[in-house]
Amino acid sequence: MKIMPAGAFALERQVVYGSEEQNRRVKSIIEHVRSEGDAALRSFAQEFDGVTVDQLRVSEAEIQAAYARVDESFLAAIREAADNIRRFHEKQKRTSWMDLQADGSILGQIMRPLRRVGLYVPGGKAAYPSSVLMNAIPAQVAGVPEIVMVTPPATAGVAGIDPHILVAAAEAGVSEIYRVGGAQAVAALAYGTESIPAADKIVGPGNIYVALAKRYVFGVVDIDSIAGPSEIVVLADDTADPAYVAADLLSQAEHDEMASAILVTPSAALAKAVAAEVDRQLESLPRRAIAEKSIRDNGVILTVATLEAGVRVVNQLAPEHLEILAADPFQHLSAIENAGAIFLGPYSSEPVGDYFAGPNHVLPTNGTARFSSPLNVDHFMKKSSVIYYSKEAIQQNGDKIMALARHEGLEAHARAIQIRLQKEGIARG
Amino acid sequence: MKIMPAGAFALERQVVYGSEEQNRRVKSIIEHVRSEGDAALRSFAQEFDGVTVDQLRVSEAEIQAAYARVDESFLAAIREAADNIRRFHEKQKRTSWMDLQADGSILGQIMRPLRRVGLYVPGGKAAYPSSVLMNAIPAQVAGVPEIVMVTPPATAGVAGIDPHILVAAAEAGVSEIYRVGGAQAVAALAYGTESIPAADKIVGPGNIYVALAKRYVFGVVDIDSIAGPSEIVVLADDTADPAYVAADLLSQAEHDEMASAILVTPSAALAKAVAAEVDRQLESLPRRAIAEKSIRDNGVILTVATLEAGVRVVNQLAPEHLEILAADPFQHLSAIENAGAIFLGPYSSEPVGDYFAGPNHVLPTNGTARFSSPLNVDHFMKKSSVIYYSKEAIQQNGDKIMALARHEGLEAHARAIQIRLQKEGIARG
Repeated sequence: MKIMPAGAFALERQVVYGSEEQNRRVKSIIEHVRSEGDAALRSFAQEFDGVTVDQLRVSEAEIQAAYARVDESFLAAIREAADNIRRFHEKQKRTSWMDLQADGSILGQIMRPLRRVGLYVPGGKAAYPSSVLMNAIPAQVAGVPEIVMVTPPATAGVAGIDPHILVAAAEAGVSEIYRVGGAQAVAALAYGTESIPAADKIVGPGNIYVALAKRYVFGVVDIDSIAGPSEIVVLADDTADPAYVAADLLSQAEHDEMASAILVTPSAALAKAVAAEVDRQLESLPRRAIAEKSIRDNGVILTVATLEAGVRVVNQLAPEHLEILAADPFQHLSAIENAGAIFLGPYSSEPVGDYFAGPNHVLPTNGTARFSSPLNVDHFMKKSSVIYYSKEAIQQNGDKIMALARHEGLEAHARAIQIRLQKEGIARG
Repeated sequence: MKIMPAGAFALERQVVYGSEEQNRRVKSIIEHVRSEGDAALRSFAQEFDGVTVDQLRVSEAEIQAAYARVDESFLAAIREAADNIRRFHEKQKRTSWMDLQADGSILGQIMRPLRRVGLYVPGGKAAYPSSVLMNAIPAQVAGVPEIVMVTPPATAGVAGIDPHILVAAAEAGVSEIYRVGGAQAVAALAYGTESIPAADKIVGPGNIYVALAKRYVFGVVDIDSIAGPSEIVVLADDTADPAYVAADLLSQAEHDEMASAILVTPSAALAKAVAAEVDRQLESLPRRAIAEKSIRDNGVILTVATLEAGVRVVNQLAPEHLEILAADPFQHLSAIENAGAIFLGPYSSEPVGDYFAGPNHVLPTNGTARFSSPLNVDHFMKKSSVIYYSKEAIQQNGDKIMALARHEGLEAHARAIQIRLQKEGIARG
């Protein structure tokens, strides 16, 4: 790994808009699904997935068949992970509230789950059961009654779907599963077809076509953010074990060649030791080619004068994952402004959070931790304001409201108040 | 107003994408600001606003001059409204939390304000002081240290800006104000220029170019939702005063010709009376032409069998504003799934919420109340997860985490755990 002073480094970030050709194709797929419905979904399954799809919806019997195909230890681990994730997300749940005023008015905020949420799950090797749990459980905890999964069909698996994905979905409270992928699945969730009712929100990772389709339907439905490449920043001092740091950097680097793994440290000794450890550990990794390219292209060790200076670098990077391996990791927590998930101390290796601890692994990438949050229960709820104004309140404040409305030239607004004051005046007289 | 059975009515909703030409212009303006910075802003001010802008930033002296230009009663009303808005939004504020586990691990969620937020305020007649309060105060309550307002310059006002807007901004905690509008202002907030540092989020209403520019920069920064035309639905039974209902429908209709005002009622008598009242009240309205066209094109009275059936219609419409004028309005509150703000009872006329009561008047339009919320403090905060895993926790759960990682083919993830188990094992041995 390159070692350089932090001041000499600038992270290049790119927002993905796709090419004009990609956008045209996505738009055409979406319009096709809007006009042709299920027929378009079947024809795209044939064209893009090479699969003839008869029933779009996965049956209860197929889900039961999937359970028979996964082993006990997988099921037990998934269930324990799901319990942890559920317990953490339960703590995020908020209640509706009322504020009772002295004049008899009541103001309030109502919290409600979305009615129907679509979860996109990629096909093939990028289909991760852990990702199904992380996307579906917050919706389940929010109380979303209809959680719909879509995933591209293949020829293998249980009726074209990896049985582990089906089991994870069932465990996480997914209520409907459809064999449809790509931009066409996003279109079906946004606009609905004969067999797939439209959803209110679409979440989950996907390829460039899925991302562009989500961007396109944003407004018709809500979407989660468009995920960029995965990132880790490790902030460490000379108390950190270089083998731990190297292993954690590599666990990020193996995701894909675009992933970035960065160490920020005031310790020249640690910098050197980690660089050597990365090389050593790389040698025996099954996904060595990917991890090596990721480390070479996007991995770097940034040296800083102090841990405090390191924190400033971290805030500029706004990483998806941040690990702090330092003598007293909590000492720096208050100063961290921008990070999706913060892992503190030697035992909080990032995979702990990817799979098991409970907090969500769907995190803001590409520097968006400046303004975005880990996937959470709020993402699956909506608020409504409540205003119950009393007679006393309108008598007391009516004139001021009318004055503000008239200042803005909105006379009908003022008159809606005036007509009440007049009638109440008559009632009083 | 037309009267028809609710079953015969379908609301057409359109997501605004703009024409190809409009998108091309917006993209070109944004790229120009990215490459030329302040010079581009000055040149666009000349071209689009017809104004020579020397200093982009409004000075403290200009803000003081604005105070001298507004009258006492306006200032008092704005301050009282701001207090109410602040008090309501304070109740939305959330704290960071920790969850201490039996094995010594600590999980948590940190809440932090965004650092820098941009507030777009339209120029000319569409510049509403109330809108400045409603957009800025939630950011102020969230604790955002830098709240930046941009607004297109004119030749009138205080140095080109309506003094009431400047005063509202100062009262609402806006920390910087710049004379720049249109897509170029959005570009400046997203990418920064020599005199305007980049923001993390952009909020506030604007014309089609502002909306398209916000859509374009989404991802570089966060944006609020793209506002559609304003809407009101009144759900009323025969206890409602037709004059109140008509006045409230018209207060929505006067906004613009695209605004929609809908009455849903089981009472044929109320339907007739409201239709007549709307005609009567329309006659003397200063904005009669706008309100009349809005009522004719987008106004409708929908008859239903019962209030319960009316609630189902409301949930389909998912209105921005909902008024319930019925014998016991709270009786229906639990069944309302989709509405931005809910006004209950005869005295809760919509302008009460537009100006004064405290809840936000920036609400989800165009049916997006299905998945979106009124502007609130959460929109100006971000969350980070915290994971502090204990030695005991990794010893207990390490094997399960490794199994899940290996199932997904991510060996480096498993090894990041394994290396810790091995070292701890050695330490123990």
